[in-house]
Amino acid sequence: MTASNITSPTKFVEVGEQRYAYRRFGDGSGLPLLCLQHFTGTLDNWDPAVTDPLARGREVILFENAGVGRSSGSVPRAMAAMARHALAFLDALHLTRCDVLGYSLGGMIAQQMAQDRPKILRRLILVGTAPRGGEDIMHLAKPSLAVPLSDPKLQGYAVLGKIFFAPSVSSQAAADAFVKRLLQRSEDREPASGPAVAEAQMAAFREWESPNGQRFANLKAIRHPTLVVNGVHDEMIPVRNSYWLSENLPNAVLLTYPDSGHGSLFQFHESFTRQATAFLASESADAPY
Amino acid sequence: MTASNITSPTKFVEVGEQRYAYRRFGDGSGLPLLCLQHFTGTLDNWDPAVTDPLARGREVILFENAGVGRSSGSVPRAMAAMARHALAFLDALHLTRCDVLGYSLGGMIAQQMAQDRPKILRRLILVGTAPRGGEDIMHLAKPSLAVPLSDPKLQGYAVLGKIFFAPSVSSQAAADAFVKRLLQRSEDREPASGPAVAEAQMAAFREWESPNGQRFANLKAIRHPTLVVNGVHDEMIPVRNSYWLSENLPNAVLLTYPDSGHGSLFQFHESFTRQATAFLASESADAPY
Repeated sequence: MTASNITSPTKFVEVGEQRYAYRRFGDGSGLPLLCLQHFTGTLDNWDPAVTDPLARGREVILFENAGVGRSSGSVPRAMAAMARHALAFLDALHLTRCDVLGYSLGGMIAQQMAQDRPKILRRLILVGTAPRGGEDIMHLAKPSLAVPLSDPKLQGYAVLGKIFFAPSVSSQAAADAFVKRLLQRSEDREPASGPAVAEAQMAAFREWESPNGQRFANLKAIRHPTLVVNGVHDEMIPVRNSYWLSENLPNAVLLTYPDSGHGSLFQFHESFTRQATAFLASESADAPY
Repeated sequence: MTASNITSPTKFVEVGEQRYAYRRFGDGSGLPLLCLQHFTGTLDNWDPAVTDPLARGREVILFENAGVGRSSGSVPRAMAAMARHALAFLDALHLTRCDVLGYSLGGMIAQQMAQDRPKILRRLILVGTAPRGGEDIMHLAKPSLAVPLSDPKLQGYAVLGKIFFAPSVSSQAAADAFVKRLLQRSEDREPASGPAVAEAQMAAFREWESPNGQRFANLKAIRHPTLVVNGVHDEMIPVRNSYWLSENLPNAVLLTYPDSGHGSLFQFHESFTRQATAFLASESADAPY
């Protein structure tokens, strides 16, 4: 079996009545890397240019949360419940320790997991995401997002090419390459998310925007070495949310990319996977790598 | 000759009436790396833990601007004139192309050089610095700086240990190690800067805080691949200045370090020199490395 998200079969694991879809591929001496997906994204939204290089040093585990794709159940309306599903999934796989890559929505779930069960996680990579109490998280009605989202000429993944990337020629070229890579997987694909998934996840974003006590104080408890990554022109979850993460997490390095938006990890996949690999390879208690 | 700032002799070059002190050591296939120093710093303020690993792949050239250490002349009261000195120095060495590491004050001079003579520079590393129009640049009267600066118990480099590092135990331990490294050079040292140097450089900071036309618009012209680095607890030139750099320079990657202040490159010298080396080794037209 090739270690690639283009060909890796979707697997299933059951916890009571709940069935979780996932993919698991790669090997090496690194801890398994749990990958938590963005708003409405399924297993098919993981760019092989990101997952496959990471799978060359460890197992990569792509997780489909409850109510998404072929995972059963309903989509929770809060990050806390999504984190409980992710932890139940790790327990079902008998994984007692792993690293985590949380992208966008997935980065919020990763932060919640780190607070609820710190010892199950070693290192965190948080991309294009926000702390609890963050601002301007996925406000799809603002013009910079509403215009492409309501453009009838943009269908399917082409919408992602507009909203995940910057308007520059170079970023739009990277968007086209990204969409082509996502379409390389031709069989065993997940069903696309419908409006019910979007509505519930959007409720979870709104809940996450409310501080819980003193703003950002909860981040002090997440002492895991963390790599925070963001594109400087991110319209979906603006980069200032990553500034708050790196200023308030006690042990976080921040890396920002130019000329890019929410999908900076896809646009600069070679740099991102190189940096993530170096970060994950470090045995230090400190985040700098 | 060992390629180290502990032992490398101070050299001199003359341009008309002007004499510049400098050190030049190291070798390798990389372009020479011009290093531009912080407020009141001399050649002796370059941490060998930063300069020496970089000198393993290229020549490192430490430059003493006019009126500092054993360089003759008076200290200019604006970055533009300091940039002219640095360019005259490169011309005197017949260097037509190099990379530059500008730290704090030196990062402002590097930005000015990149605008005035773009082709002489290939890649920029800007650490703990600010764009023209930046804020809270070296306001030494604010309590977080005035208290250590006026503490009679803190003498010589011990002051740097307080104002360049964060108050945490781990950062203060890194400060002590930094000061010890600076004291390893025992001969051929530069005279420390006096109040006249500080006064003129402070005038240059104040001039740099005034936007020239639309704020940050000048940064669009600096298209060089740039690596921006800052500690998140920098009291001397707060990290938001690095955010503005990375958001407005069209081709810049930002790296921030936790648990550290103005001297983040000294505290995390292993990480910094690894990242800087990878950045300088890249042949790409894009900054991400």
